[in-house]
Amino acid sequence: MRYLKITLAYEGTAYAGWQVQPGTHGPTIQGKVEEALASLTGERIRVVAAGRTDAGVHARGQVISFATHSRIPVDRWPWALNSVLPEDIIALEAVEVGPDFHARFSAKSKTYRYTIDNGIFPDVFQRRFAWHVRHPLDLQAMERAALYLKGRHDFRSFAAAGRPVKSFEREIKDVCWLKEGPFIHFDITADGFLYHMVRIIVGTLVEIGLGRRQPEDMGIILASRKRSLAGPTAPAHGLCLMRVDY
Amino acid sequence: MRYLKITLAYEGTAYAGWQVQPGTHGPTIQGKVEEALASLTGERIRVVAAGRTDAGVHARGQVISFATHSRIPVDRWPWALNSVLPEDIIALEAVEVGPDFHARFSAKSKTYRYTIDNGIFPDVFQRRFAWHVRHPLDLQAMERAALYLKGRHDFRSFAAAGRPVKSFEREIKDVCWLKEGPFIHFDITADGFLYHMVRIIVGTLVEIGLGRRQPEDMGIILASRKRSLAGPTAPAHGLCLMRVDY
Repeated sequence: MRYLKITLAYEGTAYAGWQVQPGTHGPTIQGKVEEALASLTGERIRVVAAGRTDAGVHARGQVISFATHSRIPVDRWPWALNSVLPEDIIALEAVEVGPDFHARFSAKSKTYRYTIDNGIFPDVFQRRFAWHVRHPLDLQAMERAALYLKGRHDFRSFAAAGRPVKSFEREIKDVCWLKEGPFIHFDITADGFLYHMVRIIVGTLVEIGLGRRQPEDMGIILASRKRSLAGPTAPAHGLCLMRVDY
Repeated sequence: MRYLKITLAYEGTAYAGWQVQPGTHGPTIQGKVEEALASLTGERIRVVAAGRTDAGVHARGQVISFATHSRIPVDRWPWALNSVLPEDIIALEAVEVGPDFHARFSAKSKTYRYTIDNGIFPDVFQRRFAWHVRHPLDLQAMERAALYLKGRHDFRSFAAAGRPVKSFEREIKDVCWLKEGPFIHFDITADGFLYHMVRIIVGTLVEIGLGRRQPEDMGIILASRKRSLAGPTAPAHGLCLMRVDY
């Protein structure tokens, strides 16, 4: 038996997410990857992903792990997979790991990027990958608000119902902003994320950027532990899983 | 009567081109724009475009002109159009012009960008907008070859059959290369372009970049005035009309 860790990029537009979530249906990325593995190996392989991305969410650095009897050399794995995967899912790298490696449980941190297109009109080439917010955003206010999130907190205010969890505590290790023409990229690194957490955080930050709330409200919302105080859930298509660190 | 000049961006993926070309069928960008104009004004308006982009070719700065009786204020035109255009066509700017302005005939120069993705695996987010060439390209050789194109020449070697023209002479005013991660952008500005000219030039440059031909061959191909000596036509989806100058 061999144990593999494979890094994937995918465009989530056409998928119901990594795996089927409550309220979604349709093809999943997990399903396509497992089909590809079956056609390469003849085995029925279950794969585990670091982040179970929602419907419409993208990835540049999703990590999966699985066990196989296949003798395909490790450096050939991306080529083999790409020859059978649909064109919106791409294997980038394969590494052999030990039997204890688990793409999700072994992860130390994950980094997501949320991209906002703050141009007057949407950029036609980025419309699948960025949330278009046409009113000018106060980036400084958003930056100040995001600082309240750093560190270990109970993030219940930023969690959607729908996934049972043992604890709402997570540690946000870093937040980073990047302005690129009309685009605002918000990168957030944590030891884990609750269901819809990044999207609810971004929805709240945008309310602050629009001047509907104050940066200080972020601290109040966080402390309240009430989802109802936070902003709306930002759309899925602006979100991308950038990397997973082990 | 008022005369308008409107700048458009569009993703060409879903279209048979600006207007239907020989051998293509399906919806056209011109058709969608004229439908949008009809629904806004109640008039049957014929629009003229600076560049009749092929099926699958994109635009960031296509320019169109037309005449209308509509009293929509000029600065409201982009908003009005965007409210009725499909999401892959976006009006960016509208300017009132004189009756003599013609989007194509008044143009002094046009700039196209051709984007090559030279990464080992295709970038999943750019696959609709870049030609993936996985073998490493010798950019220096391509740069040297492209210099042969500058100036006024007979570009018959780089013209596909299919559009009658009075002359094969065009003036290439500038060529410019930009490397951005795995992407190579090739910008070319000319007073006009022959049918498939940029794509045949790029197909030839890529042959040179792969080492199958020498940079000096570009001069020989150009002087030969034989299409058969040039390289293959690069795929449409890497091409984008960036701007038109008047």
